[in-house]
Amino acid sequence: MHAYRSHTCADLTAANAGETVRLSGWVHRVRDHGGVLFVDLRDHYGMTQVLADSDSPAFAAMEKLRAETVIRIDGRVKLRDAALVNPKLPTGEIEVYATDLEVLGPADELPLPVFGDLDYPEETRLAYRFLDLRRESLHNNIMLRSKVVRSIRNRMWDSGFTEFQTPIITASSPEGARDFLVPSRLHPGKFYALPQAPQQFKQLIMVAGFDRYFQIAPCFRDEDPRADRSPTDFYQLDVEMSFVEQEDVFNTIQPVIQGLFEEFGNGRPVDTNWPRIPYAESMLKYGSDKPDLRNPIEMQVVSDHFRDSGFAIFAKLLEQEGTEVRAIPAPTGGSRKFADRMNAFAQKEGLPGMGYIFWRKAEDGSTEAAGPVAKNIGPERTEAIRLQLGLAEGDAAFFLGGKPEAFEAVAGRARNEIGRELGLTEENQFKFAWIVDFPMYEKTDEGKIDFSHNPFSMPQGGLDALNGDPLAVKGYQYDLACNGYELISGAIRNHKPEIMFKAFELAGYGHDEVEKRFGGMVKAFRYGAPPHGGCAAGIDRIVMLLADEQNIREVIMFPMNQRAEDLMMGAPSEPTNEQMRELRLRALPKE
Amino acid sequence: MHAYRSHTCADLTAANAGETVRLSGWVHRVRDHGGVLFVDLRDHYGMTQVLADSDSPAFAAMEKLRAETVIRIDGRVKLRDAALVNPKLPTGEIEVYATDLEVLGPADELPLPVFGDLDYPEETRLAYRFLDLRRESLHNNIMLRSKVVRSIRNRMWDSGFTEFQTPIITASSPEGARDFLVPSRLHPGKFYALPQAPQQFKQLIMVAGFDRYFQIAPCFRDEDPRADRSPTDFYQLDVEMSFVEQEDVFNTIQPVIQGLFEEFGNGRPVDTNWPRIPYAESMLKYGSDKPDLRNPIEMQVVSDHFRDSGFAIFAKLLEQEGTEVRAIPAPTGGSRKFADRMNAFAQKEGLPGMGYIFWRKAEDGSTEAAGPVAKNIGPERTEAIRLQLGLAEGDAAFFLGGKPEAFEAVAGRARNEIGRELGLTEENQFKFAWIVDFPMYEKTDEGKIDFSHNPFSMPQGGLDALNGDPLAVKGYQYDLACNGYELISGAIRNHKPEIMFKAFELAGYGHDEVEKRFGGMVKAFRYGAPPHGGCAAGIDRIVMLLADEQNIREVIMFPMNQRAEDLMMGAPSEPTNEQMRELRLRALPKE
Repeated sequence: MHAYRSHTCADLTAANAGETVRLSGWVHRVRDHGGVLFVDLRDHYGMTQVLADSDSPAFAAMEKLRAETVIRIDGRVKLRDAALVNPKLPTGEIEVYATDLEVLGPADELPLPVFGDLDYPEETRLAYRFLDLRRESLHNNIMLRSKVVRSIRNRMWDSGFTEFQTPIITASSPEGARDFLVPSRLHPGKFYALPQAPQQFKQLIMVAGFDRYFQIAPCFRDEDPRADRSPTDFYQLDVEMSFVEQEDVFNTIQPVIQGLFEEFGNGRPVDTNWPRIPYAESMLKYGSDKPDLRNPIEMQVVSDHFRDSGFAIFAKLLEQEGTEVRAIPAPTGGSRKFADRMNAFAQKEGLPGMGYIFWRKAEDGSTEAAGPVAKNIGPERTEAIRLQLGLAEGDAAFFLGGKPEAFEAVAGRARNEIGRELGLTEENQFKFAWIVDFPMYEKTDEGKIDFSHNPFSMPQGGLDALNGDPLAVKGYQYDLACNGYELISGAIRNHKPEIMFKAFELAGYGHDEVEKRFGGMVKAFRYGAPPHGGCAAGIDRIVMLLADEQNIREVIMFPMNQRAEDLMMGAPSEPTNEQMRELRLRALPKE
Repeated sequence: MHAYRSHTCADLTAANAGETVRLSGWVHRVRDHGGVLFVDLRDHYGMTQVLADSDSPAFAAMEKLRAETVIRIDGRVKLRDAALVNPKLPTGEIEVYATDLEVLGPADELPLPVFGDLDYPEETRLAYRFLDLRRESLHNNIMLRSKVVRSIRNRMWDSGFTEFQTPIITASSPEGARDFLVPSRLHPGKFYALPQAPQQFKQLIMVAGFDRYFQIAPCFRDEDPRADRSPTDFYQLDVEMSFVEQEDVFNTIQPVIQGLFEEFGNGRPVDTNWPRIPYAESMLKYGSDKPDLRNPIEMQVVSDHFRDSGFAIFAKLLEQEGTEVRAIPAPTGGSRKFADRMNAFAQKEGLPGMGYIFWRKAEDGSTEAAGPVAKNIGPERTEAIRLQLGLAEGDAAFFLGGKPEAFEAVAGRARNEIGRELGLTEENQFKFAWIVDFPMYEKTDEGKIDFSHNPFSMPQGGLDALNGDPLAVKGYQYDLACNGYELISGAIRNHKPEIMFKAFELAGYGHDEVEKRFGGMVKAFRYGAPPHGGCAAGIDRIVMLLADEQNIREVIMFPMNQRAEDLMMGAPSEPTNEQMRELRLRALPKE
């Protein structure tokens, strides 16, 4: 017989009754039922009930077992009494009467119990990750992640893509975050960088004549702590294709992502209609460039109804250039209590408040509009608003005014809040949209023109467009939004050096700087570059959505804590003098 | 019609004759056949012949095309004349008469031609890797690598393994090489390390209760330049299993590797009999722990025939303790010319020479032994040697004597040389062997006891064995040799803290040092560790064997040069002052 097992802890059924078997695993739980000891024996595959009474040679050893000890037992498979069959367990029809027991790996007193899935402080969980990972929910999340990654790989290969590994110890490839640097021992004073993304390499792969690239790529960014992201690295599905336009990318990626969500969504409906929504429209309707389309609310511009109206705040506001009033319709939200709650929400978000109207049944049975706004603008304008928004008795509308940049984000969050509070957002489903036509440039707070997203995108209209107003230039740049998250970001790339230099020039980067920062890629573009484009999808985010988890550390096997420390392995740590000497480095005292 | 192509450059056949098509790709070659221009248009998938005569609107543009320009052409598919059909090309039945041509990506004068596969200095090839990668042989190698990695993944999943990603920015995990360090910005003065291998993590995954792990894992070692390895990083198939013994690992891995070589070996036979050869036997028979079994030569100990013989050098040598004489039989090597050549080889390798005997036909038709050794030891001992080695007329034998450690490696190389020179080694096949029973410890040049391989291996005999002579302890440690290369290395691990501390103590590592270096893992072993073991296989080496390449840079998309520089991307490079300030580091002047 095998030294450790004839079966896994998930294998045995009634069909094995009477057989002599050998099992190995962890002691999940020991119960003493008056002279009969029961051990739930757990391995990666499942759980089997093992028992011994005082007649068994294994009894004495079993009495001493501590939870999480690794043991090997030999025994006979017995049918359980009909009343004791556990239909939830694949092995629930049987139990194993132990005749021999060997401790393979003893266990000290546990700092973190595995049985029971109790909540424990995250620092303890991270320091004893090897115990935490034995718990069912985390174990399942990690297995889900692996299966998701595998499925992505297969779907990409099946779509004609090839996976290539790009360098990890390489040159800096600025993507807007901080690089992790790696000092070179052979070239003292010089440093490698870990890639923030394989952006330049994937474009070089296209220039090198490979047609469809993907990679489950590790990306490294020295980020300041934030709850929902890893402070050091993350994985993305990185994709690039040659000889394509934007719609080719969409039509290639949708089946992959849609299929993935159908496969692992646990039956939650996956919308197959993926609208293309221009960035400007998305900001207007949803107050976000990653709208949650499970929420049916769409905002509308209602400025005209307030212009020169009796609602002085908005009327005055609208006299300034670039201002607007937008309405958030709130079907079924027609009560003062709800309106006040939303008003408080806006105040918490830093706005003076949100104007509102709600429609209720008047004492005479007719529909009446209530709230200070309605009073101020009068019944005609109020009715015009109601008609524009398609609302009725029992509904409400909220109003925000000013320069859209100033209130759009809050409006978006209010929309989320309203959708959730009123139960309009149908949670258990996945809804997608491609957000397109992102502006190439934006004005920074200092009034400078800068790239608003990826500097490598092809501007719509090419070189001609760059000779006009930069803020009017749109890029062939797109995101995929899902349930309020940005799942994918991508672009058709700028593969023409002259357009690239011009695009960088507008953002204040001189010719030399572009050559210095992106020299390898720019050089390559001079020797026959194909039109190309692609995207990158966040693996962690996809798994979080599928596992319905809010914390990224629940879907990573060995995550850093938020201070970028590995408490289990003790990283980062002091280097040895020898190491510093070899690298020709000196650490300066703290500032 | 699609903006860039209706078909790839590999799609069109006689069945498409008469169709209007659109193709995009690189100008592989332009030929002018007196008023008719031919362009070999190349993309990732294949090549299509495009032509234009002076009647074509595309003619003028085509005349100006430089090699490697990216173009889009529209045209009509025509059958080639029967005499001009190229059966070697999938598109060889047709050509496309171009009616429109657009330059999508112009090309400057090339520093490295793509057409013709000429040899170019490696530094040029690396600096223009994006051009080099367009060349057929390198393009094919890189595609082969991707397919091999994919096949490994599928085979591992199909064998019940799950792929998990382990951290890249982590703690130092010493594997005998130098770490690459990553300075921490959030914790000034502290450093992360890139993993030399995921050794500790994979063992932690087993302790965490996952049963069968694999990963195509990047490994980072700050190596000094050597021709056949990457100076920075490499990929390995990393494997670990719980509740297994050595033979379980072998029986799991053989089908994966064997299937892989059968799939990609291009018809070369793959031996299905994988012997287990103890380390000591391998050193004796093959002079190597990674024997090339395509070579049938097996060395033998022949000390007795030389003891007290007339061959004074060996006779004298054998009086010293620990010495031996070994013979390399060389069937069909029976000529003075060959014997002299091998003797010269041994001298080049730093030995005084190799004694030899060869058997030839004497003038009277009988077999006679020739060479100085035969003369000195006399006919009886010579004949005994011939019988022991199973040699005959036309064969030879070479002799090496001394302490085996001193001559074993040269003997191994001589065996290779003899096998190759005499054509005994059948090149076009793959032969494997598991080398087992490696010694746990060795004596260093300074006379110190140190681990000879992996310190994490379980010693055969457990704690008891460690209380005896350390140099006699064998580990459950193994390699897979293929055609003279070490393809895989692995072990059953030491999962018991007390045995681990004892094993390290013998090598001079105190309790505290083990806790400090491997604290995470040792801690984990105290909370229920399963018996486990695994191995790691070098991906680069596997692909090199399959692609029949000697240089690792021929199977890596973007390799470093031997000075650990990326000439295309310009890595490593000087950091900015800002970066150094943030990391609280100062670079010291060169020594």
